[in-house]
Order: sequence, then structure tokens, then C-alpha cells
Amino acid sequence: MTVADARLTPSPHPPSQGTLYGVGLGPGAPDLMTLRAARLIEGAAVVAYPTLAGGASFARAIAADLIARDAQEIVMDVPMSVERAPAQAAYDQGAAAIAAALDAGKDVVCLCEGDPFFYGSFMYLFARLSARYRIEVVPGVTSVTACAARAGMPLAARNEQLTVLPGPLPEDALRARIDGAESVVIMKVGRHLTKIRGVIDALGLTDRAVYVERATLPEEVVLPLVDAPETAPYFSMILLTKGADPWL
Amino acid sequence: MTVADARLTPSPHPPSQGTLYGVGLGPGAPDLMTLRAARLIEGAAVVAYPTLAGGASFARAIAADLIARDAQEIVMDVPMSVERAPAQAAYDQGAAAIAAALDAGKDVVCLCEGDPFFYGSFMYLFARLSARYRIEVVPGVTSVTACAARAGMPLAARNEQLTVLPGPLPEDALRARIDGAESVVIMKVGRHLTKIRGVIDALGLTDRAVYVERATLPEEVVLPLVDAPETAPYFSMILLTKGADPWL
Repeated sequence: MTVADARLTPSPHPPSQGTLYGVGLGPGAPDLMTLRAARLIEGAAVVAYPTLAGGASFARAIAADLIARDAQEIVMDVPMSVERAPAQAAYDQGAAAIAAALDAGKDVVCLCEGDPFFYGSFMYLFARLSARYRIEVVPGVTSVTACAARAGMPLAARNEQLTVLPGPLPEDALRARIDGAESVVIMKVGRHLTKIRGVIDALGLTDRAVYVERATLPEEVVLPLVDAPETAPYFSMILLTKGADPWL
Repeated sequence: MTVADARLTPSPHPPSQGTLYGVGLGPGAPDLMTLRAARLIEGAAVVAYPTLAGGASFARAIAADLIARDAQEIVMDVPMSVERAPAQAAYDQGAAAIAAALDAGKDVVCLCEGDPFFYGSFMYLFARLSARYRIEVVPGVTSVTACAARAGMPLAARNEQLTVLPGPLPEDALRARIDGAESVVIMKVGRHLTKIRGVIDALGLTDRAVYVERATLPEEVVLPLVDAPETAPYFSMILLTKGADPWL
């Protein structure tokens, strides 16, 4: 059985079991969540979400106005660490708490920044629970198209290609992938900004590049890459588009 | 002045001028549009949208329940043709009608399937009007994450890369881009299905590939690529993901 088969064949679930909803919340502005996401959150008796190293949860902040006062909240505190084991333990524990709620017949709404299957931590829960539980994924607006909207830069038209790269990739890999690509989106810029800038400069593409930080939030920053700050937060992105093409 | 500079420097607009909203509607299910999109459409005195070769407008169908009865509708009928001139003329005409409404102080809400800047025809209007008018782009859920959600296939995690390719690309280009890539999304499959299947087969990747047609609509189809039909509609996609990686 292939991976695709396994994912597409629904396993039988006891009818009394709850459903886990992985709900994309969009890039940050609360009104960029979907109508379906809002309806599910408003009606949720149990919500789940990750926090990073004991900090506030960005996902919970986006959804805050819609969460019922008496909702049960399952908080997965994911430690920041280069080792995998501590984060794995946090997701194991979160998955167990979610499973307990589902077994008790409750639906669980898991809050996910952006889209659950696009660089989202929801996929760690999906990997742990999808064989045993009914899961519905509600797609959300990704930071990619949100940044393009805010920068006024169309991403791809007609037969153009789009490449999405994570900023933590090694310099060589970034250079090889950007060189010859058409539109490029570099995610998770953060502390990799200097390295990424160096690669883009060396390829002579700086005047096509725009830096976007915390897109759609009040503290949003949109700047030509040449004017970007020296340090970037984790939620920052660089867009490189083909530019001057007078579309159609 | 670079492209980025030009796009980021707002030109001064007369305060009496209306604003053009390019509003992403998501992949098809009406409740996968954002709260912001719904609010803008409900309040719109003027809506604009394309139709293809005199057919029904998919964008208008998604938004239908929200459009005010007395709203003015600007319809851009885009002819199907290999030549560019007829489509260009349709967008020229649409842009002129939108400009007239904006000059009269009315806001215009342009309805866009998916996301306006992700393979959307809105960018042809943006190219024609952005120098003279205030434009706000409201990002939407793309078919890419909608298909992944429906197929139960996470797209990219951690430092994985994602490549988006249009199906009409020549066979050689498709093979070169898919070979060595990580997750791959092939858009606009339609009449290119046989060619794309051949490429994926030759690369030995068929058991990692899923075919999705009209994601999130009642007539949706999700199948392992090996079981896909012989002919595909324009709104179909193939997802190739890394698969068996037990995330984190």
C-alpha cells in the first residue's frame, strides 16, 4: 500500500468518537481567517494550540475573540531546542490529551497559524493521530500570498513557476535553488537574513527582492530588501518575483 | 527606480477616488473565503469578475449569496484563444469600466478565485490600474493548500522545499524541475494529464502522487494518480509529497 493509498482510505471510526479539526487561521489579521474557521472556533468546546518555549501563542491570539469563555484549552508547550526529543515529547503529550477528548466524544479544534499543512506544526499531530481518528483539515491563507498582497507583487501568472524555500537552508542550497528559478519565496528568514542577503546580492537579484515582516499585523514592515533592517524576526519573508513582465 | 520601489511607493490619489479591492475567494467552497472578503463583497456597490468565453463565472458563483441585488456588475468576458490580443482587449475594456467607477468615487470589489496574485487574472487588472488607483489585495486560500487538506497530504515541514509548476510546461521542463525536487504541486493539469503522468511515471514517483479535481466543491475527486481518470478538467492538480517522513 502506498502512502497515497493509506491517506486516502478512511479507517473506520467509532461513531461516538469526536473529530479533530486542524484549522488554518491565516497570516495574522483575524479577519483573514475563513468563515469556516470562524464558525468552528466559535462552536468549539475544546481548542488546542502550541506555544513556543512558554511564550504566548500566536495562533491563540489570532482566534482569541472567537474562543468561548468556557472552552477547554489544550496547550502544547513546545520547547526551543536543537534536539528533537523535547519537542517530540511535547507533541506526544498534546496528541494524548487531544486523543482523550476525542475518545470522550468531543470534537477538538486545533488552532494553526497560516495553513495547517504548509510549514505548520499541525502536521506533527496529524502524523500521530490520523490512523486512529477522523481528522478534517481546514485550509487557511498562507503567509506567502499575504506577503505578496501587502507588497503589491504578483507571485506567478500563466506558465510561471514558484519556488518556496526555507531560510535555514545552507547557503549553497539556497544559491542553487534561487539561480535559474522564476518567482521565489524565502520563508522563516529570521536569523538567516544576512546569509540570504549575501546569496541574493551575489546573484544580482537584490533590486527584485522585497522584505516583509509580520504581514497583515499592525506592526507589519514592507521594504525593498536593500532597506531591510539588520535583524529579522522569525515571521519574516523575502519575495523575489520576475517583476517587470507586463502581464498579458 | 526598481520594480520593488515603484510598487512600494504609494502614488498620490485624489481623496474622492474609489478603491479597487482584489478579493481572493478561496478554492470554491463559499465558506472558505475570508471574513474580510465576505464583508467587502456584502458591502460592494460595484463588483467585477471575469467569465471565460461567455460561460458562467466561477468567481461569481462562489460569492453569489453575498452580492447585493442592486450591485452594479462589471463582467469581463475573456475569450479562449491562443492569441493574446483578444484577451488583452477584454482586460483593457474591463480596466476602463473599473476606472470609470473608481473615478466616480465608487469602490470596486473584483472577485478572484483562489488568491488574486497566485495564477489569478486579477494581476492583469493590477498591471493596468496600479499606477493610477488605490488597490488593496485581499489574499485568499489557494487551491494548493486546499488540495493538500482534502488529500490529507502535508505539503512541507521544517526545511523542506515546495515547487509549484504549471502543467502546460513542456515535458522536458517538467521532468527537470520535478527530478530532485521535494514536494511538488502541478497546477492546471487539464488536457496535460497524459504528459504529466508520463513524466511522473518515468521518474518512478507515481506511488507518491495524488490527483485532486475541483477541491472543496461537492463534485470533488481525490484519487491516487494511478487511479485518476483519463481526462481532467482545468481545475485539477497533482500533488507529489515526500511522504513517509514521520514528521518530528
